[in-house]
Amino acid sequence: MDSFQETATTDETLDPPNWTEMGALSHQVLDDAIAYLKNVRERPVWREMPAEVRSFFSAPLPRSPAPVADVYDDVARNVMPYPMGNIHPRFWSWYMGASNFTGALGDFLAAIQGSNLGGGNHAAGLMDSQVVNWMKEMVGFPASAGGTLVSGGSMANIIGLTVARNVKAGVDVRERGVGAMPKPLRYYASDQVHSCHRKAMEALGLGNRALRRIPTDAGLRIDIVALKAAIAEDREAGFKPACVIGTAGTVNTGAVDDLRALAKVAAEEDLWFHVDGCIGALIAIAPESRSLVAGIEQADSIALDPHKWLHAPFEAGCALVRDASAHRNTFAVTPEYLESTPRGLASGAWLHDYGLQTSRGFRALKIWMALKEHGVEKFGRLIDQNIAQARHLTRRIEAEPSFELMAPTTINIVSFRHRVDGASEEKLKAFNTEIMLRLQEDGIAALSDTTVHGRHCLRVAIANHRTRRDDLDLLVTEMLRLGRETAAAAAPM
Amino acid sequence: MDSFQETATTDETLDPPNWTEMGALSHQVLDDAIAYLKNVRERPVWREMPAEVRSFFSAPLPRSPAPVADVYDDVARNVMPYPMGNIHPRFWSWYMGASNFTGALGDFLAAIQGSNLGGGNHAAGLMDSQVVNWMKEMVGFPASAGGTLVSGGSMANIIGLTVARNVKAGVDVRERGVGAMPKPLRYYASDQVHSCHRKAMEALGLGNRALRRIPTDAGLRIDIVALKAAIAEDREAGFKPACVIGTAGTVNTGAVDDLRALAKVAAEEDLWFHVDGCIGALIAIAPESRSLVAGIEQADSIALDPHKWLHAPFEAGCALVRDASAHRNTFAVTPEYLESTPRGLASGAWLHDYGLQTSRGFRALKIWMALKEHGVEKFGRLIDQNIAQARHLTRRIEAEPSFELMAPTTINIVSFRHRVDGASEEKLKAFNTEIMLRLQEDGIAALSDTTVHGRHCLRVAIANHRTRRDDLDLLVTEMLRLGRETAAAAAPM
Repeated sequence: MDSFQETATTDETLDPPNWTEMGALSHQVLDDAIAYLKNVRERPVWREMPAEVRSFFSAPLPRSPAPVADVYDDVARNVMPYPMGNIHPRFWSWYMGASNFTGALGDFLAAIQGSNLGGGNHAAGLMDSQVVNWMKEMVGFPASAGGTLVSGGSMANIIGLTVARNVKAGVDVRERGVGAMPKPLRYYASDQVHSCHRKAMEALGLGNRALRRIPTDAGLRIDIVALKAAIAEDREAGFKPACVIGTAGTVNTGAVDDLRALAKVAAEEDLWFHVDGCIGALIAIAPESRSLVAGIEQADSIALDPHKWLHAPFEAGCALVRDASAHRNTFAVTPEYLESTPRGLASGAWLHDYGLQTSRGFRALKIWMALKEHGVEKFGRLIDQNIAQARHLTRRIEAEPSFELMAPTTINIVSFRHRVDGASEEKLKAFNTEIMLRLQEDGIAALSDTTVHGRHCLRVAIANHRTRRDDLDLLVTEMLRLGRETAAAAAPM
Repeated sequence: MDSFQETATTDETLDPPNWTEMGALSHQVLDDAIAYLKNVRERPVWREMPAEVRSFFSAPLPRSPAPVADVYDDVARNVMPYPMGNIHPRFWSWYMGASNFTGALGDFLAAIQGSNLGGGNHAAGLMDSQVVNWMKEMVGFPASAGGTLVSGGSMANIIGLTVARNVKAGVDVRERGVGAMPKPLRYYASDQVHSCHRKAMEALGLGNRALRRIPTDAGLRIDIVALKAAIAEDREAGFKPACVIGTAGTVNTGAVDDLRALAKVAAEEDLWFHVDGCIGALIAIAPESRSLVAGIEQADSIALDPHKWLHAPFEAGCALVRDASAHRNTFAVTPEYLESTPRGLASGAWLHDYGLQTSRGFRALKIWMALKEHGVEKFGRLIDQNIAQARHLTRRIEAEPSFELMAPTTINIVSFRHRVDGASEEKLKAFNTEIMLRLQEDGIAALSDTTVHGRHCLRVAIANHRTRRDDLDLLVTEMLRLGRETAAAAAPM
């Protein structure tokens, strides 16, 4: 106990001993950050880390202090130059937003204020609810709907699928578990459904088997006739059809299921209708393209991703549930009758009653600031811009005999490959993979690859507010050059 | 199509049209942020929002742009002055860290770089793994263990409990679900267990009923004899005892279960041993106090919270799993044999194979920067400092006849109440609640209330690097004053 007395006389804190020095350093950090974004176009999209950078990250736990300027120097030297690349105008790999400077200021201010969004009566809590209300407005949901900001699309989908499970279980599944359900539930989605739904089914104790993958048509949209047949078959076999998952923008090709048709099937068959709109829900705000996702407003729940087409810095997902009570009844451990305090800090809403987290960060601020600055109409135009860019690239590919379009371009994802006369599928895969890797290694562009209708191809997903049409023209030129070089270097096909 | 052509000629972006102006504004934001933290002690801990601030947050979705300086002005006026309060030295409500300036710079830089931690070959991914390795080192886990950074303690607990479920299911539960398990699983925890475990059991499809709450002793630690009896009873009744959850620091009183005894029971009974160390796991790094959590290093999985005693800005939780394969086998949807690309961006590890998220933010950076700046030894001393402060407050309470200590102070949580001679439990609750609310409303201190052994009391959780001993002396003085005023104002007890 004496030693405690001792240390107490010299109270320590994490606050800097000298705020002026910390201020000077952080102004430098800020100037570097601005230069970093301003010049992003001049840097390679991605580059391989040298061996000394890799080994830097194997250092053991630091026991003693280091000057904060040195710490920043380490970050500036070893972290900032080796990004994933998704803020670069020629990053089109997978499907990610490109962040934005105002959003970064939002994350900084959220960390400075430090508030916990588990709930309570404070400004951040109100803003969180406001941003959720704005999301409802964007997709045409009623103001009475429930919703919550989450870490991303996977969690937003889990929220929707969990509410569906609990509503359809036919038993108090919260108390008694999945084993007590009178009939095993069945969920339905297209064979293009994102892998996070499999993870969700497994986590929820329903099992991967409970998610029936329905075949898709030539446009890679769920086959409605096949869906109905599967539902009938499952009823016959003693399952309980519970939920249909529509995909508004598949990760593979950007296909959008016929959401109106799915809403109709769900209504007729008494299914929960969940829309995975992580990629495409926000097309609802794009003036030229919004008809592509018509029907989304009829969903029972929607997952969407502000860190994609609203370009919020990671992480920012959102789950919306039409029936706010069903939403709360799935997750709340605070009984409705248990009043929080009538006044004071604990008198606000308990936002942790709408999901799996207890403590929650102030994700709303970065979204709010960028939406206020630019207005939602501009975000809508930016989505149209990306879709128009994808159509431009599609036309370039169709016009170029060396290339082959591999799937219809519906939204902002273009699937194609470089042809090689007479080459096997295996050779084509190796050839296109090599082109993709060289584009990355040369820092020109980041693409990803995938499989469409069983055939390997490259994939350009344009969800970047910095991309210009001439970036896509450069991609075509460079792919043709790399195609020639790779063909020349390779053994005969 | 023509309209798309049109817009393309005027490419829009979210980047500022004038970086110099944006730079000037953001330097102002930075200076304000520094003043905000530097002067935090001079401001009230918490204050009620005026009606015009509340109504500010009901504005509809902004359609048109606003100057970014005005947007910041809105935030400076309506958000920053009305925080939850947990960065203030006299915030002792619930259990939260107090953030730190370097961590806020880390969140800013993470947003600027924008990298997605779902995986891949880039610096952020390597740093994420490094920070997880550091966490293992802190709690005495082997370097071979698995782990992942998550949104917080609730998610970290879900990770551990899910791995436990899948390992103990006795069936391929990922594929077939909970309904196919040969015997219903049972989990065990003390009756003081955090509510997130109930949420986890429900989400996982095991049901709340599968979590057996074991009585606690006078120190509110799990009763080992009662635990063993419950396990035997469940085996007899046809259940499969699967997992025991030890709590290292209950949220209620800071009680720490006898982790060594639990490790022994788990080994004897073939149970998974999970430790909820969200509050107390990091006591393992505190030189004076670490023996309190001895045995934690024997766990199969641990949940801990860098956004608590490492004061990382929200959000930052961490799940550690001793058996890295069991961890991966629970969540991975990428088969082990499916090579990512041999080179390039996709050649790194897939960090999304260790949890429920796909996209993940760069949480590691804020933790890394603060650990490098201060060194882990200082964080250990700060934990000892908080525990010493709790003991100081406990001595003050014990010495003050108007106060009554309601639970033993083990770590940094003090449960007590203001006495009123001859008052009923109901009157005492109203009286103490009023004191708590006035402390908040006057901006003096934020406490929370709880129930210990069926009796209402106030609760001071000191997990704040800015708290000094004289803050606690002030609390005692002010509570005595408010006690007198409240007693005088109230109807006779």
